[in-house]
Amino acid sequence: MINQNKESKITLLGAGPGDPDLLTLKGVKALQTADVVLYDALTNEALLEHAPADAIKVYVGKRSGEHSYPQDTINKLMIDYALNYGHVVRLKGGDPFVFGRGYEELDYAASYSIPVSVIPGISSSIGVPGLQQIPVTHRGMSESFWVITGTTTSGEVSNDIYHAAQSNATVVVLMGLKKLSKIVEIFKAAGKGNLPTAVVQNGSAEDEKLVVGIIDTIENLVAQENVKAPALLIFGEVVSLHPSFKTLVKQYAAIS
Amino acid sequence: MINQNKESKITLLGAGPGDPDLLTLKGVKALQTADVVLYDALTNEALLEHAPADAIKVYVGKRSGEHSYPQDTINKLMIDYALNYGHVVRLKGGDPFVFGRGYEELDYAASYSIPVSVIPGISSSIGVPGLQQIPVTHRGMSESFWVITGTTTSGEVSNDIYHAAQSNATVVVLMGLKKLSKIVEIFKAAGKGNLPTAVVQNGSAEDEKLVVGIIDTIENLVAQENVKAPALLIFGEVVSLHPSFKTLVKQYAAIS
Repeated sequence: MINQNKESKITLLGAGPGDPDLLTLKGVKALQTADVVLYDALTNEALLEHAPADAIKVYVGKRSGEHSYPQDTINKLMIDYALNYGHVVRLKGGDPFVFGRGYEELDYAASYSIPVSVIPGISSSIGVPGLQQIPVTHRGMSESFWVITGTTTSGEVSNDIYHAAQSNATVVVLMGLKKLSKIVEIFKAAGKGNLPTAVVQNGSAEDEKLVVGIIDTIENLVAQENVKAPALLIFGEVVSLHPSFKTLVKQYAAIS
Repeated sequence: MINQNKESKITLLGAGPGDPDLLTLKGVKALQTADVVLYDALTNEALLEHAPADAIKVYVGKRSGEHSYPQDTINKLMIDYALNYGHVVRLKGGDPFVFGRGYEELDYAASYSIPVSVIPGISSSIGVPGLQQIPVTHRGMSESFWVITGTTTSGEVSNDIYHAAQSNATVVVLMGLKKLSKIVEIFKAAGKGNLPTAVVQNGSAEDEKLVVGIIDTIENLVAQENVKAPALLIFGEVVSLHPSFKTLVKQYAAIS
């Protein structure tokens, strides 16, 4: 119903990597008071059940074969709904500020003086490796992790990936499956052909799939296993802690 | 009560940065079935209320003036409780695998063939900047973020910080307040004296405090504001998006 003395406000809410139980309590509370929910392709629709039955739920994401809403359109919808209906929850996959364009939405709302709250979500960059029991850091093995987008504004691989390939950090690349070939080439050029590497398709969801190898083998494995986006790439010694990697090492030892 | 036909199992549970509402639904469900909860200094005790009243709650963290439990002792306690009481929830601040020594606990439990589940938590590395409305990534400004521990096994600043200071990544340092002086020196040596910098004390908790400046000023500001650990350091252009930074810029412009 149209806003009658209702305060206009916006909550940028991180939904987590996919499993609806990875939403926070604070997120549940925000949804419970939503007048409108604007949600993305990466958010599980089960999350919408936390919102009141009469809240307006608007899908603003992208599905295969369809165009996604331009960011401008999403920004404007968000403002229109906030002005007309009150509390808009902008539900975003993962964390709103990890390649989620969350700050653009915050900034746009601020230009209309509409108050914005931010509720962090479990970022797939940490949560998806973790659910696979691959720790992004491990004492004596990795003192840091570096999270990089595989999809830059220019369409090129981020320059940061060249630096990351030279570093000792665990490197996690989001939205990078289409660039895997180029990324592998960068790691090879840095002399890291044997670096343990994992690819996780649709982490924490039902069709989750994990492929574990090294830089030199990962492209073939991904093709064999028919891994599809969305997928997350993990490069680093910590991948060797995964049981599949240990099995792999034994298999190679048996052959040679 | 002593385990009678109860399955021994362990859940490594990330509690998030401090606000108890930043626990996930999956975390609540794990606590509800806990026979024993082993919890850290960084976890908010309100979280223990999700566990049954008769569950055993054991504090294994460190408070000022007290010694912390050595990791070995925690590992052994975890196994003893799992064998004797059933489901042990190991509740850890942030995410279990972000400098949480979570993998060591997982590995130790695996050596006793006790099944371990991992439930990710909101890592303060992303959530604390986010709650301050500082996005770790922002289109056209930062294509990556690099999270590094300030406290290495050797006691030295991590080598990764030298590389990070040269990179374009947003750099987040956890447990680094004591090393701030050294870290600032490293960024200065990389020609980054003007890089926007923020320090957040006890993010998401009641005594949260934010200090915003640049590399060249941050040490003085931290001293002036009497910032105390635990604190998180953020280095990068994204810090300039914070309203305090904009105010700062205006103040300088007015003086000069």
